[in-house]
Amino acid sequence: MRRIDQIEPFRVMQLLERAKQLEAAGRRIIHMEIGEPDFPTPAAVIAEAHRQLDRGDNFYTPSTGNPALQQALADWYAREYNVSVAPERILITPGSSGAFSLLYAVLLEAGESVLLSDPGYPCQRNFIRLAGGCPINIPVGPETRYHLSAELLERHWRDDTRAAVVINPSNPTGTLICDDALTAIAAYCRAHGGHLISDEIYHGLTYGVRARSALEFDDQAIVVNGFSKRWAMTGWRIGWVIVPEALIDACRRVMQNIFIAAPTLSQYAAIAALGATEATEAMRRAYDERRRFLLDTLPALGFDIVVEPQGAFYIYANVRRLTDDAPSFCRELLECAGVAITPGEDFGRYRAREHVRFSYATGLDDIQCGISRISAFLNSRES
Amino acid sequence: MRRIDQIEPFRVMQLLERAKQLEAAGRRIIHMEIGEPDFPTPAAVIAEAHRQLDRGDNFYTPSTGNPALQQALADWYAREYNVSVAPERILITPGSSGAFSLLYAVLLEAGESVLLSDPGYPCQRNFIRLAGGCPINIPVGPETRYHLSAELLERHWRDDTRAAVVINPSNPTGTLICDDALTAIAAYCRAHGGHLISDEIYHGLTYGVRARSALEFDDQAIVVNGFSKRWAMTGWRIGWVIVPEALIDACRRVMQNIFIAAPTLSQYAAIAALGATEATEAMRRAYDERRRFLLDTLPALGFDIVVEPQGAFYIYANVRRLTDDAPSFCRELLECAGVAITPGEDFGRYRAREHVRFSYATGLDDIQCGISRISAFLNSRES
Repeated sequence: MRRIDQIEPFRVMQLLERAKQLEAAGRRIIHMEIGEPDFPTPAAVIAEAHRQLDRGDNFYTPSTGNPALQQALADWYAREYNVSVAPERILITPGSSGAFSLLYAVLLEAGESVLLSDPGYPCQRNFIRLAGGCPINIPVGPETRYHLSAELLERHWRDDTRAAVVINPSNPTGTLICDDALTAIAAYCRAHGGHLISDEIYHGLTYGVRARSALEFDDQAIVVNGFSKRWAMTGWRIGWVIVPEALIDACRRVMQNIFIAAPTLSQYAAIAALGATEATEAMRRAYDERRRFLLDTLPALGFDIVVEPQGAFYIYANVRRLTDDAPSFCRELLECAGVAITPGEDFGRYRAREHVRFSYATGLDDIQCGISRISAFLNSRES
Repeated sequence: MRRIDQIEPFRVMQLLERAKQLEAAGRRIIHMEIGEPDFPTPAAVIAEAHRQLDRGDNFYTPSTGNPALQQALADWYAREYNVSVAPERILITPGSSGAFSLLYAVLLEAGESVLLSDPGYPCQRNFIRLAGGCPINIPVGPETRYHLSAELLERHWRDDTRAAVVINPSNPTGTLICDDALTAIAAYCRAHGGHLISDEIYHGLTYGVRARSALEFDDQAIVVNGFSKRWAMTGWRIGWVIVPEALIDACRRVMQNIFIAAPTLSQYAAIAALGATEATEAMRRAYDERRRFLLDTLPALGFDIVVEPQGAFYIYANVRRLTDDAPSFCRELLECAGVAITPGEDFGRYRAREHVRFSYATGLDDIQCGISRISAFLNSRES
């Protein structure tokens, strides 16, 4: 099979397309399938973007990023995590997606492998395949809070393995990894000459607990993050990756070629984001309210939440009590009840047909309406 | 050799770094090495960006692009080239760099080859290597205006060749390809089951002649373009690629994964660029004035310009009369005369050591000063 034929579409896109058809036909659809903040970008960022536009500098920044943003992020890591990171280790990328393209280009040779959790962020597999690498999907369940562990690495690590990816908090499960587990994974990767890649894009969106950066446990960990989620800046396409000193040169060479540089305006506006804590805290509180509502209502409807999600804006639910075919269930829910949620198959294969993901990146009113509709739908199925 | 070790840095970056050192030490350096417009982005684009910021939509566009921009570009192709392109064939990418990452991900399997001209845009080779493919660099000279030809394709095409790339106008030579040559190349690619990729990023920057799109000759040609050069919008990171209908689905799948989408603000502001013809025409006239000055002065100094460049903002000169080692010559010119130009080795291997590239993306005053300095430098060397 050619590489391009191994690149899977997001299955939720078909659902989304159908949802749009229904909306075009006059139906009101409740969107709990989308992983994009429903909030506008903080006002301080918009204001800074206006100022930057007026300054008239729309030229390329250095390939590795606007030095002022690199420095601002280094300061932020000191404040946020109490870790010291040299600014030149912080590479500014077009979204965290850009960071992954970059990393796999630098780390992988054709056929080399990367360990991933199943379920996990679906693009990971495709980033690796596009770089000619081999994703190894490791089934994970409630026993590890849906995360990799050193034991799982031990069982699946191969001679050609170059890295293991931890998404913390996890997409799709919203669960955080335990400190001990993260420490052990970092140590395992180091001892076997590989890299821990910690995807921290949902940091700052945690509830009742603080997510810890892999850099707090291992200063050689590779950390990916970005402004899309916590700062509601998806369309700005601005992320970063922190790499060990030894990788900077190789990364720079790849960045010069494939990006030239990340968007200039975004690279200036993002500096203002780092100070917009009131705005981000307001969003976080709103997400938490929605999360608690869903945690209170979903189990009684038959959606089992085995590990309480403490981060991101997702709830991963087992639907075995409701169906043995989650994709069909999702389609039916959309057609009959006008509620869009994502079937587990978008995130992997392991027990995918008995899981769905709810996103609460949509207003509480809509979520409440969605739950009523789901309830009515399930009742009508029973009768 | 690992793939990452095959990714060459831009050698001009070392030169640029040294130039910055000299500037930090108080020297004034004339920059004729950089391929980035020295003009600000047109005012109409800035104004539209302000409006878009106030509209508050910073969310993702569809992966293949903002439909309004796709439609505006389709209309622009009708006006500019008199060709009809369905908007959904126009895929919006993060710069034209993004377009090439996308194309090689879609077209290539590990080890498959792409035909390139040597000299040519250096990133091309690296895009192909990063996708696991094999760049075949074909020496070209004045006899084909530094472009590929159907005869050269015939000689170098292999069973595993999937595409040939024409950069028109060329970087680094500024020369345009003849209509007949382009037609013959398109026909050759088609007949051999491959793709013609026409890099048209310097369209609109031509002098006394109009560059023609490959789509005028073959509606199945793949065309890459972007807003960086003609519209002086480098930092906005916005380009596009026009693909045959049959490739749209595969491209969409890759775009969903590796980009999610191009920057939203840029995708709206760019629509205004397409109407800013007065601003782009003023820039074009300024470039032409600089070009004519250089064409008038360089040959007498010993820089031989074999084919008159009619496009882009580059002049590719043979320096055989001055040196047998262009890289050393460029370093010396920087150290002794404070003038930065790019050695030919950044663009390939073929006769690279006897060529240099002048960029005239810098003000006429600076260019005049640069030429005086070069003249003095050459005189001092002789005496």
